[in-house]
Amino acid sequence: MTSRPYLVGLIGSGIGPSLSAGLHEREADRQGLRYQYRFIDLDALGRAPEDVGDLVRAARDLGFDGLNITHPCKQLVIPHLDHLSPQAGELGAVNTVVFEDGRAVGHNTDVTGFTASFARGLPDASLECVVQLGAGGAGAAVAQALLTLGAGRLAVVDAIGDRAARLAASLGARFGPDRVTAGTPEHLPAFLGRADGLVHATPTGMAAHPGLPLPAELLRPELWVAEVVYRPLRTELLRSAQELGCTTLDGGGMAALQAADAFRIFTGREPDLPRMLADVRELAAQAGAPR
Amino acid sequence: MTSRPYLVGLIGSGIGPSLSAGLHEREADRQGLRYQYRFIDLDALGRAPEDVGDLVRAARDLGFDGLNITHPCKQLVIPHLDHLSPQAGELGAVNTVVFEDGRAVGHNTDVTGFTASFARGLPDASLECVVQLGAGGAGAAVAQALLTLGAGRLAVVDAIGDRAARLAASLGARFGPDRVTAGTPEHLPAFLGRADGLVHATPTGMAAHPGLPLPAELLRPELWVAEVVYRPLRTELLRSAQELGCTTLDGGGMAALQAADAFRIFTGREPDLPRMLADVRELAAQAGAPR
Repeated sequence: MTSRPYLVGLIGSGIGPSLSAGLHEREADRQGLRYQYRFIDLDALGRAPEDVGDLVRAARDLGFDGLNITHPCKQLVIPHLDHLSPQAGELGAVNTVVFEDGRAVGHNTDVTGFTASFARGLPDASLECVVQLGAGGAGAAVAQALLTLGAGRLAVVDAIGDRAARLAASLGARFGPDRVTAGTPEHLPAFLGRADGLVHATPTGMAAHPGLPLPAELLRPELWVAEVVYRPLRTELLRSAQELGCTTLDGGGMAALQAADAFRIFTGREPDLPRMLADVRELAAQAGAPR
Repeated sequence: MTSRPYLVGLIGSGIGPSLSAGLHEREADRQGLRYQYRFIDLDALGRAPEDVGDLVRAARDLGFDGLNITHPCKQLVIPHLDHLSPQAGELGAVNTVVFEDGRAVGHNTDVTGFTASFARGLPDASLECVVQLGAGGAGAAVAQALLTLGAGRLAVVDAIGDRAARLAASLGARFGPDRVTAGTPEHLPAFLGRADGLVHATPTGMAAHPGLPLPAELLRPELWVAEVVYRPLRTELLRSAQELGCTTLDGGGMAALQAADAFRIFTGREPDLPRMLADVRELAAQAGAPR
């Protein structure tokens, strides 16, 4: 290995199960890069989310090339950065920081990763009328991606009505108020009755939050269903949808392609997307296997 | 590469020309380890030597496995550590910090590195009466190694008389006051007239400080001469001594073996000493080659 070494990390809370290290290091190994991806877990360190600025500065001083940023720091990190990419600035959330000549530049590859995954995985899906469940951090990124992809009408649903309303208002201001509506779960029957597709962006279905995020009887075979959860890849929602005959997209593509975009930002090298999409499946299977 | 990754660094001032990264990474590559060695240069960062404690804490928080510490931080780092090895504690200087279960433990592999290099390179040298030129940080480590190896009488000479006196007093208190004398360069003729060997531990002879550290006429063919400088490996002192027929030891062995000891402390793995001794020669030749 003769390239310059790359050192990157992930700052967040409870990040032990993240597949990012494996995704980055596998791609780096294929490219013959000396590359390390370190977990900087606030919980393990006993640090507060507000310490993210100190950690970003320390990482720059100690020679890190860049960082991924995850919950609960994606917004908190912004005041500590020197520049933002347009996607990150519009969204008000950063998941990737790269150090360029001593400046910290923030990007958001959740948006670009979901966009690319959707375009690859559901290329023929109608975006006339889309329902999104979940208006948290992942939801905000995914909603921005859907509207950028051309969603005609997007209904944002969250159990916390205020959160759905705030996200819808923010998206409406940027993409047009007639394109975005907000609601709570009791609106789902009406919204889904006239929808082309459903995007799921809450934690329900992850190993720690098993179950279905909405009543199974609201699904119809004509709906496409896209999932953000990727641990496990086949959530209860996707299983129910597939049993009905829905076209589906799992969360693995977004996970792989946000990592691929971050890898490109960190190294300036083009990642092997088909291989990274295969890696996420292997890594998720290993992570899910009983030990 | 399937081992856990290792991340280490070097904190100091003006460390750009250090061969440590190359020595560590070559050995790690042979062992199939994912290993990075980063330079954390106070000058490049605009940080004061007193910031070493902050940098050590940041390195621990960001997942570094350990650090080498060099000028001007080898003493300053001590109050920021949780434990010291016996060699480092006796010497009052640390060049290697390893993080073990969140605790920072300080070692000194300058002492062990010189000891091993001397035992390998000059196994038959008489240590009855030894003169050491240079009482700075490297000098303190080397003097401790010489007395531990069994030097009968050690004369410590430095252009700063106080520094020689302080080091001699400190060594005398530990190893016996009759074994250590101090002096300034005008004492060299008398000291060297009855000496078995000379150890050189000042910067003179490095590329930035060319020349001879003492008058050539003080050398005699019966003296062995050991050098601490290793850039270049063949200093003017060694060239003069070899022309006279002296047995000599260059600084490459100490450089390689202190790195080997640090590698063992960081990884718990046994380094390949003959290969690291060959590496230092290759790396020094590359570093010295015109570009």
